[in-house]
Amino acid sequence: MAAYAEWFPAGAVFLCVVDPGVGGTRPSMIVEADGRCYVGPGNGLFELVQRRARKARSWDIDWKPERLSASFHGRELFAPVAAMLARGEPPPGQSRTDDADRRPDWPDDLCEIVYADHFGNAMTGLRVATLPPGASLAASGRVLQRERTFSDRPSGAAFWYENSNGLAEIAVNQGRADRDLALAIGSRLEIVS
Amino acid sequence: MAAYAEWFPAGAVFLCVVDPGVGGTRPSMIVEADGRCYVGPGNGLFELVQRRARKARSWDIDWKPERLSASFHGRELFAPVAAMLARGEPPPGQSRTDDADRRPDWPDDLCEIVYADHFGNAMTGLRVATLPPGASLAASGRVLQRERTFSDRPSGAAFWYENSNGLAEIAVNQGRADRDLALAIGSRLEIVS
Amino acid sequence: MAAYAEWFPAGAVFLCVVDPGVGGTRPSMIVEADGRCYVGPGNGLFELVQRRARKARSWDIDWKPERLSASFHGRELFAPVAAMLARGEPPPGQSRTDDADRRPDWPDDLCEIVYADHFGNAMTGLRVATLPPGASLAASGRVLQRERTFSDRPSGAAFWYENSNGLAEIAVNQGRADRDLALAIGSRLEIVS
Repeated sequence: MAAYAEWFPAGAVFLCVVDPGVGGTRPSMIVEADGRCYVGPGNGLFELVQRRARKARSWDIDWKPERLSASFHGRELFAPVAAMLARGEPPPGQSRTDDADRRPDWPDDLCEIVYADHFGNAMTGLRVATLPPGASLAASGRVLQRERTFSDRPSGAAFWYENSNGLAEIAVNQGRADRDLALAIGSRLEIVS
Repeated sequence: MAAYAEWFPAGAVFLCVVDPGVGGTRPSMIVEADGRCYVGPGNGLFELVQRRARKARSWDIDWKPERLSASFHGRELFAPVAAMLARGEPPPGQSRTDDADRRPDWPDDLCEIVYADHFGNAMTGLRVATLPPGASLAASGRVLQRERTFSDRPSGAAFWYENSNGLAEIAVNQGRADRDLALAIGSRLEIVS
Repeated sequence: MAAYAEWFPAGAVFLCVVDPGVGGTRPSMIVEADGRCYVGPGNGLFELVQRRARKARSWDIDWKPERLSASFHGRELFAPVAAMLARGEPPPGQSRTDDADRRPDWPDDLCEIVYADHFGNAMTGLRVATLPPGASLAASGRVLQRERTFSDRPSGAAFWYENSNGLAEIAVNQGRADRDLALAIGSRLEIVS
């Protein structure tokens, strides 16, 4: 989310729902970071956005809908609150004064596959700007060179490149990196410099 | 559909296309039930909505588009009729006076898996309000207790809960109920009370 | 795309992204054909639209966004240009004067499976209007008759029919043609007349 959010203008409101603890003890939160707002569970989902922001503050949501199920707060709680913010209403909650929702022990970058898209491209959690110049990535026992784009390599060849959000991504020209290199979410990588 | 429709306000128009008999002899219908309108095939799709409505009536559509293929009435017939209703035009058809489209032999609830979502949660056709208090559900040779939400059970544990539309749903906290319990659409369940 | 475009009115703008050569040497183009506009890569994607048009012309895009990645021109280059055209602005580029982007050797129809939809129906690249009356299609060692719609055949039976865009499509009533007949994108067919 931190990689994508910077494409959006100030004033944008993000409705964020990755919420395995829904209905449990995690707080319901609003975060404002560099002029953009985020509504969702306080389970670490906003950690990197907060950490990278020049200016951030947050609120605990205290608004409740008339009917709230235990398992679907995205629709029933977070979406109405995001709509309130998008309409220009003030955050319906109390300013958060401690950092109990923060995750200082989480890394800034993750040297793993974090997502495989519809085409089999395997996205890492590594910002290319943080890698040593000329670095290769080792995955599944293979060392992959960096290329600029797919067509810089022959059909069927694997490589890594900087994707359009600034993250390192592993791909195979006209193939599927997830299948050809046996990569899945959580597969570990090594940086070879 | 009956479980979801009640979230929508009076005046809502539903365009409904589950239509294996498209182009055959099933009628094309409009149903008005408790102030909401439904447009689609008269193949039983509206049965539970009609049955549970305090007040319902229906029409046979007699409007035809300029060009009607034999296999795609959702786009070419039902969508334009739904648009007419949404614009406030009267139903383009004749009031239905018999019950030939109804399915009196269909059950009110279905003791089966009716859907598995993207996360592997397996939805049943059972309204929780109709189950005995404290009931468990038996599936794939296991007896599952009811919980309020996912995080009430340890990671990897299976349970059932009332989903946000009032139906019983089988889930595994941070797992996939469809895979872990070998459940698919049509899998039979038993109510253990 | 040629089969679907004719459903849209004159003035429609299509943003088209099938672009394995993104960031490489293929041109970035705008095509106007019979009053509709298409924006995307000049890699053959527009060939059939251009060939079938009564009147067509094209431009090489020379506009560039402030920030252009090597791998995601759909979002960063083609979408903004499509938006300019939709707002009524003139094409931001130079009229194309040669036919270097055309593919005269490509066939008018493709006697293969070109797509399998969510339900397992297998679409061919054959326009039904070009087939001999009464033609059957042979696929996976079976000869399939033409039917008007799904319910004209018993449950489980395979056939072909003219889909809602005028293409021949192979289906199994209440089954999956892709699985039941082992069809996938690229599977060869024969016309039996």
